[in-house]
Amino acid sequence: MGAKLAAYFVKAEQLGGVLGKVRLSGLTRMTTTQALNVDDTPELVALFEKSLDALRSDSRGAGPAAAAPSSSRAPAMGQASADAATLRRHIGVYLDLMTQRALLQGDLRETARRVDEAASQALDVERVSVWLLDDARTRIESIDLFERAGHKHSSGVQLSQADFPAYFAALATERTIAAHDAHTDPRTQAFSKGYLTPLGIGALLDVPIWVEGRMIGVVCHEHVGRARTWNADEEQFAYLMSAFVALTAERVARR
Amino acid sequence: MGAKLAAYFVKAEQLGGVLGKVRLSGLTRMTTTQALNVDDTPELVALFEKSLDALRSDSRGAGPAAAAPSSSRAPAMGQASADAATLRRHIGVYLDLMTQRALLQGDLRETARRVDEAASQALDVERVSVWLLDDARTRIESIDLFERAGHKHSSGVQLSQADFPAYFAALATERTIAAHDAHTDPRTQAFSKGYLTPLGIGALLDVPIWVEGRMIGVVCHEHVGRARTWNADEEQFAYLMSAFVALTAERVARR
Repeated sequence: MGAKLAAYFVKAEQLGGVLGKVRLSGLTRMTTTQALNVDDTPELVALFEKSLDALRSDSRGAGPAAAAPSSSRAPAMGQASADAATLRRHIGVYLDLMTQRALLQGDLRETARRVDEAASQALDVERVSVWLLDDARTRIESIDLFERAGHKHSSGVQLSQADFPAYFAALATERTIAAHDAHTDPRTQAFSKGYLTPLGIGALLDVPIWVEGRMIGVVCHEHVGRARTWNADEEQFAYLMSAFVALTAERVARR
Repeated sequence: MGAKLAAYFVKAEQLGGVLGKVRLSGLTRMTTTQALNVDDTPELVALFEKSLDALRSDSRGAGPAAAAPSSSRAPAMGQASADAATLRRHIGVYLDLMTQRALLQGDLRETARRVDEAASQALDVERVSVWLLDDARTRIESIDLFERAGHKHSSGVQLSQADFPAYFAALATERTIAAHDAHTDPRTQAFSKGYLTPLGIGALLDVPIWVEGRMIGVVCHEHVGRARTWNADEEQFAYLMSAFVALTAERVARR
């Protein structure tokens, strides 16, 4: 029972490590254990095959632009490359947030402020922000943006789906948007002239926030400078930040 | 404002790294941010000084027995020593649990099963179990024990405070009980004859589960074999497992 389905998780891990499995689980709405315990129906096998195809195109790059030669562009699922000290810092920063969750998790805005500061430090990124999707699902609005240079918090910027359809499509379907060169990445190039260039941003690492099967917002890491290749360890850390915001959102929603 | 109090966190970190800060936060019920934003009243300074004393005695060892020469015994707050691959595995295992939280977190027993298997693999430990404190706070009962050799789950063992007062006192006051030599550690030596010896257990790494200021149980890692020195990275991972169980317990309690 479920041997075929379970085998897809092995393939997903080969393609993209733990995040590959995570993404397959997200796309199929099924864990490895569940996959093992249901029958390999043709419908489910087709779903898993289609989902794995989506992962395969991830690992070839984010779209047609990836085919163009560019030394600054790495595969969407980058190689793990942080050293032990960096990984230890990642764990420490997350653990710090977790131990303070009772104080933070009643308050989404305060959670965003803490996550933004923590992620800016841990990933050495100039700007980190948390955005929430509105009820009509056509617009995101920043509830906190942290700028490291001036240790400054702000909020209230809005971006609409009508202006950035490719980005909104990516938010709804991808686990992480690692735009190593944000000016050329098909998901983020629409931001180039009006947003990235004036702010000097070269790379984006954005992780949608998922709560019970719905995307409710996004955590954005904006690297000021040239293109930057995000590695798999940085993607995993960014994913942990998004999951932490999700924990607060889940708690607030249950009140 | 709060400069004296905040300085205690720096001292705590010097003593025990992130877990040192975590423990000071637990003992004082105050985060670094809160400490910075309140006045340095004599009462608070006294509380922080007393709490730091508790940490100092941690880092000297768990009690009088630590003074005795023993090559198998390391300081209670061990040195970080895992390599990058091990830390990456720790993060991956935790991330795997987090992505499945919607499926797990309605069910404390299922959460315990998954945590036990995950921790057994990640820390290379033969037996991992989750125990809950009863309402009278005089007894703990295992809701799941995973034994790796036979891939076997069981539950229902009870231990009472009357029989193991030193262990219960440690559960209520310490962040992690890293008993490198469980037969001689003052907190766990009472288990020696009746529990550790028959099961061949040499070392214990136990992390109390805290939910909103109350200790509600414990995650136990039991190493079968001789004494084993747990390092700070292993303690942090074990702490993450306890925090994950706490998330489920918090969710179940809110229903």
